[in-house]
Amino acid sequence: MKNIEWCNDALVLLDQTKLPTQVEYIHCTDWRQVAEAIKMLRVRGAPAIGVAAGYGLILAANEANRLEAPFSEQISAFYEWSEELKETRPTAINLAWAVNRVMAIVKAGQFDAMNEVVDRITKEAIAIHKEDVELNTRMAINGATLFEGKKHLRILTHCNAGALATGGLGTALGVIRKLHEQGQLEMVYADETRPLLQGARLTAFELHEDKIPVTLETDNMAAYAMQQGLIDAIIVGADRITTQGDVANKIGTYGLAVLAKFHNIPFYVAAPYSTFDFTLKHGKDIPIEMRTDDEVLTFQGVPSAPTGIHVLNPAFDITPHELVTAIITEEGVLTPDYQESIARLQSVVEAKKLS
Amino acid sequence: MKNIEWCNDALVLLDQTKLPTQVEYIHCTDWRQVAEAIKMLRVRGAPAIGVAAGYGLILAANEANRLEAPFSEQISAFYEWSEELKETRPTAINLAWAVNRVMAIVKAGQFDAMNEVVDRITKEAIAIHKEDVELNTRMAINGATLFEGKKHLRILTHCNAGALATGGLGTALGVIRKLHEQGQLEMVYADETRPLLQGARLTAFELHEDKIPVTLETDNMAAYAMQQGLIDAIIVGADRITTQGDVANKIGTYGLAVLAKFHNIPFYVAAPYSTFDFTLKHGKDIPIEMRTDDEVLTFQGVPSAPTGIHVLNPAFDITPHELVTAIITEEGVLTPDYQESIARLQSVVEAKKLS
Repeated sequence: MKNIEWCNDALVLLDQTKLPTQVEYIHCTDWRQVAEAIKMLRVRGAPAIGVAAGYGLILAANEANRLEAPFSEQISAFYEWSEELKETRPTAINLAWAVNRVMAIVKAGQFDAMNEVVDRITKEAIAIHKEDVELNTRMAINGATLFEGKKHLRILTHCNAGALATGGLGTALGVIRKLHEQGQLEMVYADETRPLLQGARLTAFELHEDKIPVTLETDNMAAYAMQQGLIDAIIVGADRITTQGDVANKIGTYGLAVLAKFHNIPFYVAAPYSTFDFTLKHGKDIPIEMRTDDEVLTFQGVPSAPTGIHVLNPAFDITPHELVTAIITEEGVLTPDYQESIARLQSVVEAKKLS
Repeated sequence: MKNIEWCNDALVLLDQTKLPTQVEYIHCTDWRQVAEAIKMLRVRGAPAIGVAAGYGLILAANEANRLEAPFSEQISAFYEWSEELKETRPTAINLAWAVNRVMAIVKAGQFDAMNEVVDRITKEAIAIHKEDVELNTRMAINGATLFEGKKHLRILTHCNAGALATGGLGTALGVIRKLHEQGQLEMVYADETRPLLQGARLTAFELHEDKIPVTLETDNMAAYAMQQGLIDAIIVGADRITTQGDVANKIGTYGLAVLAKFHNIPFYVAAPYSTFDFTLKHGKDIPIEMRTDDEVLTFQGVPSAPTGIHVLNPAFDITPHELVTAIITEEGVLTPDYQESIARLQSVVEAKKLS
């Protein structure tokens, strides 16, 4: 089951809002459909949003190419649409990262016509997707080194940082898959992750399909599981990481990190280079997306609370670096001092690009 | 809207599983209906279960009275049914407390016929209900003293420890109502309390009906709210408290207590004398009710996860006394050392009974 596929000039997305009860695909032939799919969480997970946005830009460039206008006007429409696409969701940096990466090529390149742009960015969008698949595998291998010599591992995860959230094996679930493959995994505890239940609908689904043992729990049971000694480690994904190692991730992550600290359980974050925001130091400066009341007041259209009451609905929270045991990336495992290790990561990756 | 009413030899219960969308009452004329209502959480909340069980015993005694058998056989059937009723749910001690209180009278009294028993225990069941109403009021007054001179209070609560959970104003929500009445309350943050959403369906409903400002949040948002400085104190109810002050309460309570400690937020428990279990010292010895997978796999009847996966579903957790700032009772506010303050509470109450 592929969640993102570029096929005959269309982006085919698995509609994740319908899982696990229905498996439906959306054929996007217009970049606005991609923007809608991102906004409505039909495609979600920071790396997956980046990959989808890359393909969305091809659709936007194609549309610009169809405009009966001079190249300069076509390209300026394309720039405008790329900005709109980039602003669909504010917290996950991978979206901006992917759009910026593609647009930097457009801005730097000497193009004379829109079809040249289309051809070049098609290559880039496919490259972003392919790289995501590869780096997931490398992240999985790197993450597994944290558990060398350990068996019967019980790992807690939150939300969905799996194949459905990326182009490949997943970030947190990539590491978990590797541990399973190596016979080291006993059980995954999946938080259901209210309000949109990505843990129940997506993580439990994805792991169950792959015959990886999974136990579903409501979010408020995580502390109980830790207290009972059921959890050896926590691994989550990330939507944005600052230069000092503060982590934005799905609402509930911060609470887990505090609970992990209290119970002396290691708290790991798995995220690729594209999740790092080298322009921000402090987590408090990351914009947190507030979503509609409706998500908390209902589930799949069924009301769960009286109407007309106030609702708190931040989609993400910030875990300060002090609570993060290590950050697993495709380039290796980062440990504190994060300001140093993240700066080192940046130099390594930038040096690779130049070579 | 009364949740428990004794009316024309029947127990009328508000079916709390249907709230907030439907207001339906169940007329129980058989003690087995009361047992079913307790088991299925149509009536829930530790004090309310105690009150309902008291009335359930009248129905059981009436049935015994209708048996065409000698008094000794009638009474032995009644004893048996009282045991069955007592074992409907294992964690909240108020259920056993109410049944034991009524049955102690039966066992101690010199009764010659079942109608004498029926008359006497009818008085006792009504007394239990009436006392619960009164002690809720006293608890509210005592709890409010913890906030003297404070204004604009933002209080977080979990599950429903309100009028719906008791015979009166509520335990935790009784204190909150008092603070509102005194103009000291700015906002109640209500955790929705998965899996059965008592916070969303009952607490938000109850407070909204009474025009007390309430903000609903999913359970995993509580840490965010604390981190953002939105919470001045946490007040929860309890299902059982041991002699050293360990507290059994709705799943998720323990996690809140850990988070409160981390954020230096006071964590208060409001519970009447009937919630204390003077036979247990350690929280780990309290039996934790594990409920059906179905509650976690669905959301208001809508499937939210793939079928066939493992589920963790403890209905309660244990908060160790170290994390409890104070326990609010109808006899006053208890503070650490709880072993001492709870022993003192016991002597005061037992002395009152004798006087």
